[in-house]
Amino acid sequence: MTIKYRHLFFLSMIFIFLGTGSAFAQKATWIWYPGDFEIWLGNKMQNRRTERGSFLPPFWKLDNHYVLIDFHKDFDLAEPERAELFVEGQYNVKIDGKSVFGYPGKISIPAGKHRVSLKVFCQNSVPAIFVKGRKVNSDSSWLVTYEDKEWIDQSGKASDQSGTNWLHAAAWDFEDPASPPSAFKLSLKPQSPVKTERSGRSILADFGKETFGFVKLHGLKGKGILGIYYGESREEALDTAQCETLDKLWLKPDKKADTLSALTRAFRFVNIQIEPGMSIDSVSMLYEYLPVADKGGFRCSDEEINRIYDVSKYTFHLNTREFFIDGIKRDRWIWSGDAYQSYLMNYYLLFDSPSVTRTLLALRGKDPVTSHINTIMDYTFYWFMGIHDYYEYTGDKTFIRQFYPRMKSLMDYCLSRRNQDGMMEGMAGDWVFIDWAEGLSKKGELSFEQLLLARSLETMATSAAIAQEPGDEAKYAALAAELKKKIFDQYWNKDKQALVHSFVNGQQTANVTRYANMFGIFFNYFNEAQKQGVKKNVLMNDQVQKITTPYMRFYELEALCALGEQQYVLKEMKDYWGGMLKLGATSFWEEFDPGKKGTEHLAMYGRPYGKSLCHAWGASPIYLLGKYFLGIKPLSPGYQTYLAEPVLGGLKWIEGTVPTPKGLVKLYCSTTAIRISATEGTGTLRIKSKTKPVCNGALIKMATQGVYDIEILKEKEYDIKYNSVL
Amino acid sequence: MTIKYRHLFFLSMIFIFLGTGSAFAQKATWIWYPGDFEIWLGNKMQNRRTERGSFLPPFWKLDNHYVLIDFHKDFDLAEPERAELFVEGQYNVKIDGKSVFGYPGKISIPAGKHRVSLKVFCQNSVPAIFVKGRKVNSDSSWLVTYEDKEWIDQSGKASDQSGTNWLHAAAWDFEDPASPPSAFKLSLKPQSPVKTERSGRSILADFGKETFGFVKLHGLKGKGILGIYYGESREEALDTAQCETLDKLWLKPDKKADTLSALTRAFRFVNIQIEPGMSIDSVSMLYEYLPVADKGGFRCSDEEINRIYDVSKYTFHLNTREFFIDGIKRDRWIWSGDAYQSYLMNYYLLFDSPSVTRTLLALRGKDPVTSHINTIMDYTFYWFMGIHDYYEYTGDKTFIRQFYPRMKSLMDYCLSRRNQDGMMEGMAGDWVFIDWAEGLSKKGELSFEQLLLARSLETMATSAAIAQEPGDEAKYAALAAELKKKIFDQYWNKDKQALVHSFVNGQQTANVTRYANMFGIFFNYFNEAQKQGVKKNVLMNDQVQKITTPYMRFYELEALCALGEQQYVLKEMKDYWGGMLKLGATSFWEEFDPGKKGTEHLAMYGRPYGKSLCHAWGASPIYLLGKYFLGIKPLSPGYQTYLAEPVLGGLKWIEGTVPTPKGLVKLYCSTTAIRISATEGTGTLRIKSKTKPVCNGALIKMATQGVYDIEILKEKEYDIKYNSVL
Repeated sequence: MTIKYRHLFFLSMIFIFLGTGSAFAQKATWIWYPGDFEIWLGNKMQNRRTERGSFLPPFWKLDNHYVLIDFHKDFDLAEPERAELFVEGQYNVKIDGKSVFGYPGKISIPAGKHRVSLKVFCQNSVPAIFVKGRKVNSDSSWLVTYEDKEWIDQSGKASDQSGTNWLHAAAWDFEDPASPPSAFKLSLKPQSPVKTERSGRSILADFGKETFGFVKLHGLKGKGILGIYYGESREEALDTAQCETLDKLWLKPDKKADTLSALTRAFRFVNIQIEPGMSIDSVSMLYEYLPVADKGGFRCSDEEINRIYDVSKYTFHLNTREFFIDGIKRDRWIWSGDAYQSYLMNYYLLFDSPSVTRTLLALRGKDPVTSHINTIMDYTFYWFMGIHDYYEYTGDKTFIRQFYPRMKSLMDYCLSRRNQDGMMEGMAGDWVFIDWAEGLSKKGELSFEQLLLARSLETMATSAAIAQEPGDEAKYAALAAELKKKIFDQYWNKDKQALVHSFVNGQQTANVTRYANMFGIFFNYFNEAQKQGVKKNVLMNDQVQKITTPYMRFYELEALCALGEQQYVLKEMKDYWGGMLKLGATSFWEEFDPGKKGTEHLAMYGRPYGKSLCHAWGASPIYLLGKYFLGIKPLSPGYQTYLAEPVLGGLKWIEGTVPTPKGLVKLYCSTTAIRISATEGTGTLRIKSKTKPVCNGALIKMATQGVYDIEILKEKEYDIKYNSVL
Repeated sequence: MTIKYRHLFFLSMIFIFLGTGSAFAQKATWIWYPGDFEIWLGNKMQNRRTERGSFLPPFWKLDNHYVLIDFHKDFDLAEPERAELFVEGQYNVKIDGKSVFGYPGKISIPAGKHRVSLKVFCQNSVPAIFVKGRKVNSDSSWLVTYEDKEWIDQSGKASDQSGTNWLHAAAWDFEDPASPPSAFKLSLKPQSPVKTERSGRSILADFGKETFGFVKLHGLKGKGILGIYYGESREEALDTAQCETLDKLWLKPDKKADTLSALTRAFRFVNIQIEPGMSIDSVSMLYEYLPVADKGGFRCSDEEINRIYDVSKYTFHLNTREFFIDGIKRDRWIWSGDAYQSYLMNYYLLFDSPSVTRTLLALRGKDPVTSHINTIMDYTFYWFMGIHDYYEYTGDKTFIRQFYPRMKSLMDYCLSRRNQDGMMEGMAGDWVFIDWAEGLSKKGELSFEQLLLARSLETMATSAAIAQEPGDEAKYAALAAELKKKIFDQYWNKDKQALVHSFVNGQQTANVTRYANMFGIFFNYFNEAQKQGVKKNVLMNDQVQKITTPYMRFYELEALCALGEQQYVLKEMKDYWGGMLKLGATSFWEEFDPGKKGTEHLAMYGRPYGKSLCHAWGASPIYLLGKYFLGIKPLSPGYQTYLAEPVLGGLKWIEGTVPTPKGLVKLYCSTTAIRISATEGTGTLRIKSKTKPVCNGALIKMATQGVYDIEILKEKEYDIKYNSVL
């Protein structure tokens, strides 16, 4: 009896679900303090890595959520109403500052102006509420804080000067009161192997392509230890001594039964090893995924490119999960540099802004800043660049306003770590990454890092304006301008017509690498002559150390596209990504060196299967084809205006869809005809034509000789005839 | 089967208890990242407050623990050994950097030099480990960090420059692997009421004195709602509509049963209200307490003082719990100003350093600092003063070294909030408290706050020296000196011979209050003439607004004692604390105004039972009698040297014990004889005698005319004959 009562009480304290839905519910959603769910979920996801059966957590600081949150909103009700409450945590409810008894499941709000407040304490997950009334519904218009700073004096009088910062509550898509944020799960779908081979006490199941999820063992019988050895390749699954991931189950079923692996894993092949006396009927899997639909798409006249696009899409989906992760086999961590490329791909495929902001927030964590993001200097800068692009593509000012303080403290950290010349240089504990490349020097002041800092400072200036901090805006703009000047003074080599790699002991080094030069192109930091110099002497120069990771290939090919070299890029794409396909890739890899042979392709980090065969950064054709072949990109934040500048690059035709914040731009382009339509924004279709294009009622202007700008209004379809110069 | 397996796996991941004790165990203990258990436990305790059945959490930011911690220690073993592992969280184990498979319950360490590392992720409670081998035991010599910043490059090579900060692990008294930190509970002891009155459907149980714990209802029968109304007074318990705490239980026992209240409460009286058809055999309680023994003690020739001392002790014990709390009925929060007095009392009764450091760490929380401690400006300064005294009494340098960064960031916060004159002045969100006192002005620059900042700066200078930060030491010492000069320039009024209360709009105000003046005395900031001026014109001057809280009475009486006014203080103590006893107090109150009558004594904050009748700050006689009557205090950190300067203050004899870090000082003193002995340190017994004292073999020096200093060596007992001048 004692226990029973206490148990009931405990339940009512910690988690109240009294209602089961109501006809009044309209748009209520679970809400929480911005950034906290992301941190909590990030901790959960990033602590699932194992390496050969040993737990392998991140090596950077993991932050934690605020355990005590105050939520409120003011309502003006025409009539009284009842609202249901669902709360994750121990809570109180106040109406106009007056507490309601206990932990109510429903409250009554009288007609008129009233403030509804809830204060929630929750240690194990993020304090969250779901309020469901007629008008009194929880959504992101509610205000939240982690310190309300409201005290009373000995007479009971409340404090008269508040120092409280209120933010708008955060929400995602938790629209069912019975499915609170702490119960978040990805979706599952059963899948069968395409082939199962048995031999002795082994079963090797081949799922036909790279996949991810739980392994399901059907009709298991007998007692003993069962080993599951996962392989992205057949070789890896069969090499029980060296495969990267494995699970061991100690089983003792009472009768024939099914079981699931405890953790989700990446694999194509699963090698099940059983002990004498054990048997299994069959093996299948539950595919685990984030249910998010493609909004963008791409097709063209080249089937190999279409296949590359499809495999890129699959690679991208596999790595778009709780967050944008690096790769599904090994880390499953959120790496800022990897995620940055996913943000960009996302704008051309999913346009799923919550995935971008979840990832940015989980990466940023909380103050104080004690290291670079993921400990990597460049990865901090990619975080700022991610916000730069997020604003460009989505126009979301609220995100910047809410998180400007975290942007600022992270930039303070960077600025405090400049050396005596005011330049970024690796200090103890800083990982200066740039790329996986043999012999790449990290010594001294690297041009690449300064360039990324300059871009980050520009982002801070833009964001300061949005956050209405004009003093900061001026400061960051000045710092950016000063640094850009310094970059050219220090690294630009007139003889080499390129930025050199580094500056060591007060001297420019002779080393030229591709990194700073290619970023300088699409950051638009060069003048026209410099651009051509860089193109010739760096980008198209085989004497400069080649890039072997899809990660940096992304930027290299972007720079070439930005220089109009789509035809060259198309060939590279077919060689490089097509090269992986020819080797049987069903998703794109962490690294690909065409010079390697056979199982050499599987090795990395000194381990025979160390390489990830499904890495997000391998999916960059999604971005390149959308931005530089379909040629669609915003000209002002959130696609209020945009450019569509299709480039065939040698293809007979291309067609596709590019998502915008609330709609789509559709485009078909051949050498003689273009069809374009958009559901929002005002576009400029820019084409090169030998003669003036013909169109059904669009405004056509000649921009420069042979280049025509056609105004694309929303919700109209345009058919254009032209004579491509390509 | 599926569920069974996953459940087992989950268990093994989250919480492994494989061993049940071992003959090898010697001194192993649970360890964690310093400060984190305190924050976690503080959140738990401070979120238990309810007010008339509604949850009432703190209004300041609550921090959270680091969820991912790396632990390691290097061992040099003469022979190989096996160690058992107990872990709170999901973990890995490495020996010399090499992972052990899975989540092992035991590990083998070969002979020779080896590093044992564990890395633990735990969201719901603090990551903690217990390693139990022969020599490989977990204790505070292990090193811990929340970011190890160790990465590898693509070849598998580890990073060569570490930026990791390692601290020593924290421990308390969790010496049983089966009782981990997350399972922490205070102790329980059954107690019976001294009287139970029944009338209709009410039962009123009187436990005879203020107490704290769970209410137990015996032989409960019938179905319905049961109300428990708690009262520190009989009036409060009977006033079901206005009592401060109450619980309602919805009961439906199958058969006659016992039940416990869900939460611990403070009360002397419990009023149980049942519904028709319900019955209860009897009521008892489980007293909840921190099991910590008295080391100090005090007795004297005056029985009223002895009673005051005993009730102070009981009051102090009731408020010494997970932390030093303010009062047991209402807040049960950790308030820095309240806790500061508990630290001081602790040095004269329990000398329980873990209670001091737990409280300091829970109060401090983590960076970033977003408000004053408890939002109160003066409470931030009491935190620094708490460290000042902690070092004086215990000599613990490790604590200061480990937490110096948190001291520094909190001081940075204070310094960043000085006004343009460099003085502390309330800004938005700052609660300037000082004391509960009618009409006390908080406007402008208050002398009291500057004085406390000066003392805090001095503490920072001392601490910087311990933390080996000479630059900081010089900076803080200079800031302290400069501020002290400014205080006298700005607030000292020669005519009034006192520090005035405030400085408003560039003008000294005419208002003189006791606060800054009494702190100036025991901070020793005045010269002899100023002291006498302050004594006459402020402390002994009835025209200056009187103090009504035991909180500030503490400092007022301390200042008077420091001026040698023990006789006056004794009378005040008998009037004030004796006054509460005469009104039937069984513990000392939050506030006592002898001018009030009857139930007026119970009211505060505009509520009829708002006042706490058991408040830690009411227990100050423990401190005053120990420090200023027995007269024992450290002269150098940790009682390496100390002073014993007994003052009878009109009493015939006093005797008592004062604890030191590892021992005791015992003292008996009458007007003709003194007995003293100590187990550590070198003491100076200072007495005033008409003739030269006589002693068994001690070194006696005359300090000034009629004042003799006798050297007290450890582990010897001294019998002294003298002719007291008092």
